[in-house]
Amino acid sequence: MATFNERLREAQQRSGSWLCVGLDPLLERLPAAVRREPEPLVAFGRAIVEATADLVCAFKPNLAFWLAEGLPGLAALQAVRAAIPPEVPVVLDAKFGDIGHTAAAYARFAFDQLHVDAITLNPYLGVDGVRPFLEREGKGAFLLARTSNPSAPDLQDRLTDGAPLYQTVARLACQWDADLPGNCGLVVGATYPAELATLRALAPHLPFLIPGIGAQGGSLEAAIADGPTADGLGPLINASRDVLYASAGDDFADAARAAASSLRERIGASP
Amino acid sequence: MATFNERLREAQQRSGSWLCVGLDPLLERLPAAVRREPEPLVAFGRAIVEATADLVCAFKPNLAFWLAEGLPGLAALQAVRAAIPPEVPVVLDAKFGDIGHTAAAYARFAFDQLHVDAITLNPYLGVDGVRPFLEREGKGAFLLARTSNPSAPDLQDRLTDGAPLYQTVARLACQWDADLPGNCGLVVGATYPAELATLRALAPHLPFLIPGIGAQGGSLEAAIADGPTADGLGPLINASRDVLYASAGDDFADAARAAASSLRERIGASP
Repeated sequence: MATFNERLREAQQRSGSWLCVGLDPLLERLPAAVRREPEPLVAFGRAIVEATADLVCAFKPNLAFWLAEGLPGLAALQAVRAAIPPEVPVVLDAKFGDIGHTAAAYARFAFDQLHVDAITLNPYLGVDGVRPFLEREGKGAFLLARTSNPSAPDLQDRLTDGAPLYQTVARLACQWDADLPGNCGLVVGATYPAELATLRALAPHLPFLIPGIGAQGGSLEAAIADGPTADGLGPLINASRDVLYASAGDDFADAARAAASSLRERIGASP
Repeated sequence: MATFNERLREAQQRSGSWLCVGLDPLLERLPAAVRREPEPLVAFGRAIVEATADLVCAFKPNLAFWLAEGLPGLAALQAVRAAIPPEVPVVLDAKFGDIGHTAAAYARFAFDQLHVDAITLNPYLGVDGVRPFLEREGKGAFLLARTSNPSAPDLQDRLTDGAPLYQTVARLACQWDADLPGNCGLVVGATYPAELATLRALAPHLPFLIPGIGAQGGSLEAAIADGPTADGLGPLINASRDVLYASAGDDFADAARAAASSLRERIGASP
């Protein structure tokens, strides 16, 4: 069975793209025409997926925005996930981090209920919270190393053994990946270009999921500066709001496609 | 409006209990009679709540175990939450940690959809991921300081500025609590008694949520050794598996009540 990294590389080669579109819909930001639909989140999500699926190497739904709408929100996430072509990996952005017994329950939710291909994980609980995900054949797990938000330094820059904590996380991720290879990656915000370069050097074989370009002000140039890994694995450059809300009118899907296409071109990188 | 801490203290005084029952049902561990019900998680959860509500100061459903059953699982969590008397605080154990924009969406899920009274949070992203929860009037947020699992030291014991990271988290929590007082607490595992005592000294005013007794092997004696805070706020001593699965037979609810009652007596502490 292929590792997650192998599946991701195939998706990047097929699409000629390192773009990942984040599926983080806020009801109040949806176009008026969509809001009148009986299931607005489903209508919106499917339209975005159809408009952009051939331009991306992955989709990344963020669990928070679906759960915020309660049961209909979770049902909508399932429906939108089912509309994504099977060859395009889906990364559930949930930042799970729990003790082993509970992490195993989250793995069942992500992989057996939602049928996603990878997830994001918070490393604060150590390997116990990570192993139940890495053990799933062909499924990926991206560990938060350096996040894209302004208060990321509160903990992540604290010096531990002479190096900031986020670097310790990268070193641990390399160890954990060595035990169960081919399924582990790192989340590294585009808003911190220097840290991005440092992490690339520390974890040369791990794929990077890079949020923070666009609305959060991160640099696309920094995100792509290091190119693919030696194994030909490009980063997943995530864009959410810039694609989802490219137009507030009836042309939102065309505008999303145009925005995704332009980002794909600016990334310009086919591995 | 009362702060979360005030509501918790009231609940502890009313029940004469620091016991918190964790609602973490695994379908395969439910009694056979319950599994034959059309909605086993609802039947089980309601029975446990009815059998123990007067013996506890809070309930703590862990989101993972409900999501693991997909849409029916989330619907069951809503139904069980609705069965909890309004005077008993409900802590959603979800360990959320995300950027501010996303944390706000999780706050809507927890407080506006599930109507819980408090949640658990992962501090790795810093104050951005915490503020949207602390800002909700009367709602509580328990930050992971020292978790109860074996690999907790992987990150939490790293020395930062001469002290382990979990102590840095406690110091930050005290700062964040000073800005928006009365709603912040810490999660501290009963499996690490020395760390528990250290944290009590570092954060004398914050309520502690203490998992890890019972199935995880933590010490109940250590969990209660420090008594209540100066403000009369006792710890929330969580028990899940010992109560939920006290009997695998038809008498599971009576057995759960007996287990909860015995734990409440051993805790022996009415603030």
